[in-house]
Amino acid sequence: MPSPQPPERHFPAVEFERRLARLHAIMRAHRLDALLLTTPPNVRYVTGFDSQFWESPTRPWFVVVPLDGAPIAVIPDIGVPEMARTWVADIRSWPAPVPEDDGISLLAAAIAGVARRFGRVGAELGREMTLRMPVLDFLTLRERLRGLEVVDGAPAIWEARMVKTPAEIACIRHICRIASDAYEALPPKLEIGMTEREAARRLRIDIAERGADATPFLPAISGPGGVAQIVCGPGDRELRDGDILFFDTGSTFAGYFCDFDRNYAIGRASDEVRRAHEAVWDATEAGIAAAVPGATTDDVWQAMARVLEAAGSVGNNVGRLGHGVGLQLTEPPSNRPGDGTVIREGMVLTIEPGMAYAPDRMIVHEENVAITADRAELLTARAPRELPVIR
Amino acid sequence: MPSPQPPERHFPAVEFERRLARLHAIMRAHRLDALLLTTPPNVRYVTGFDSQFWESPTRPWFVVVPLDGAPIAVIPDIGVPEMARTWVADIRSWPAPVPEDDGISLLAAAIAGVARRFGRVGAELGREMTLRMPVLDFLTLRERLRGLEVVDGAPAIWEARMVKTPAEIACIRHICRIASDAYEALPPKLEIGMTEREAARRLRIDIAERGADATPFLPAISGPGGVAQIVCGPGDRELRDGDILFFDTGSTFAGYFCDFDRNYAIGRASDEVRRAHEAVWDATEAGIAAAVPGATTDDVWQAMARVLEAAGSVGNNVGRLGHGVGLQLTEPPSNRPGDGTVIREGMVLTIEPGMAYAPDRMIVHEENVAITADRAELLTARAPRELPVIR
Repeated sequence: MPSPQPPERHFPAVEFERRLARLHAIMRAHRLDALLLTTPPNVRYVTGFDSQFWESPTRPWFVVVPLDGAPIAVIPDIGVPEMARTWVADIRSWPAPVPEDDGISLLAAAIAGVARRFGRVGAELGREMTLRMPVLDFLTLRERLRGLEVVDGAPAIWEARMVKTPAEIACIRHICRIASDAYEALPPKLEIGMTEREAARRLRIDIAERGADATPFLPAISGPGGVAQIVCGPGDRELRDGDILFFDTGSTFAGYFCDFDRNYAIGRASDEVRRAHEAVWDATEAGIAAAVPGATTDDVWQAMARVLEAAGSVGNNVGRLGHGVGLQLTEPPSNRPGDGTVIREGMVLTIEPGMAYAPDRMIVHEENVAITADRAELLTARAPRELPVIR
Repeated sequence: MPSPQPPERHFPAVEFERRLARLHAIMRAHRLDALLLTTPPNVRYVTGFDSQFWESPTRPWFVVVPLDGAPIAVIPDIGVPEMARTWVADIRSWPAPVPEDDGISLLAAAIAGVARRFGRVGAELGREMTLRMPVLDFLTLRERLRGLEVVDGAPAIWEARMVKTPAEIACIRHICRIASDAYEALPPKLEIGMTEREAARRLRIDIAERGADATPFLPAISGPGGVAQIVCGPGDRELRDGDILFFDTGSTFAGYFCDFDRNYAIGRASDEVRRAHEAVWDATEAGIAAAVPGATTDDVWQAMARVLEAAGSVGNNVGRLGHGVGLQLTEPPSNRPGDGTVIREGMVLTIEPGMAYAPDRMIVHEENVAITADRAELLTARAPRELPVIR
């Protein structure tokens, strides 16, 4: 039963032309002659190139974005037929894998050919970025680019990617809808005695049947009255009366992620856990209300933290109360004190308050919102305030 | 319908103690006082730590392996409860994300505390490795480790990981069985007019139902009489009479991958494509026969290349004819001229010959084998020599 009306998954060239124009303006402000991109989300953002082959770490792939020109793909031969179907016109390739020189000479030549104005090239060196090429090859490349300084391109890249286009938001909205529908349909599929792993498998299959492309993240975690952590699992623990069963999923449509969770009580729920669930639900409301253009991520954190503290939270181990989501499961900004990001129209954020109400008993909620001109619009079907009980 | 008899997915501590003893011997030969690990497969290899949360790039995770001691985990607070369930006893953590110092001071202190004998620390800098931490943080760390040289740890890591333990091979065998069963059951689920995407979805769901944990890689690619590339897709192309439909999958069980493909003809197959299919099948036989302890990966390549050339291959764009598989979809070695790896008992390889028999018409086969004391043992159910036709 696929969820209704998927949006167009193939963006037209004009979508990428607009992204590039905006990226160029940002690059100019950051004084970058070029950006060097190596990772799946960054390459996809500028080219539209879609592949599961990134799963193989053997071959590096490169895209160079010159300040005043279109992207140049420098890629293994194996990827040329598919890259040729994107809007990228300048494709250069080599017969990878060639450990002796896996594209480095070709890449150095491509970068050296870019017009010089600032003498600086941005690479994926900083915040929430990892470079998808051997570091030794990167250091070799840096030496070869004589007269060009290689600097951190992360601030420019995140400035571009943090604000989504309508086409991007449509994809996130669709995957949020698919996962919302799957969460809603889940309770009758679960029963006491089932393992976390089997519960996760049933949700995973339903999400695929509803039209998701992939589900890279689907923890299912259970514990008596709450969970000790929210990022690892499922395990082989069997669901027992009095448990909280926590699900989270990062599933994708056309490369775009949702990232939100749901909690279910198994058999029954104590008054204490019901109250904690409602307090975290109320904190989510406060977070959604606070996420408006002009506010900061600190403000959003503060709005949630106030509700959680009033409810007797003894903290949690997550380190923040939500974050950006898009081509990656988690992206900047972070809803945490000191982050200081000003919220803008087009951002897509998770609102993710959590509290431990006793040792190893944590309740975490999460919804996804898109920031409009004046408010946060829910992309997920809002969780119920009252904890659902599976009998 | 889960495939029968899954092996034990939770390895006992003795499995990791043996891996560590072997790794220590290799580190000694490579003159390393410690290894610094940051990536999911390397961390899992030494600790058993299992999480889908690696999908979030926000927080770095570190494991330090001292030459004469047990692994030290230096990780975000959010991961402590789960790491505490592994055999790792020394766990140090910080409240990530903290962009100002995301674990670097804590990590530098852990490395500085390791006994010095060679003055060298190996990191994931080289072949088929990417460092999962911001490069700027790595460069800061390198400066802080005064008196310690940070060198490429990739040769030591691959030397260890290339030879699998019986417990690892059991997991690969199981996921190969699951995917083999799913491929065998696939033809009745397919029909002319179906899109590649829908065909891939049906296979993906069946693999999940049979007990796979995840399917990070499942291209489905079609083309008249063959395909132009084998790594990107599925797309929205509809299956037509006379097509070749190519599937490949890297699915996982307990973290271990299979990686093998299958070809189906839609409606009918020309004599030309039948002959190409049989030639590539014969090349696979030659590759399996050549993959014996003491031979090199060059020999395995040569055995296959000879058959392909005799059959009139005009080459292909893959760059090699198979590779290692394990905790990653592709791992060293590569079956290609110049690789020079001596095949040893315990290796798990893909035997992957491919040929273009006309422009944009490529046929690629792939099977997975485990190397025993005297031969290559098939882990996959051997594809039929005669091209299966779906009517």
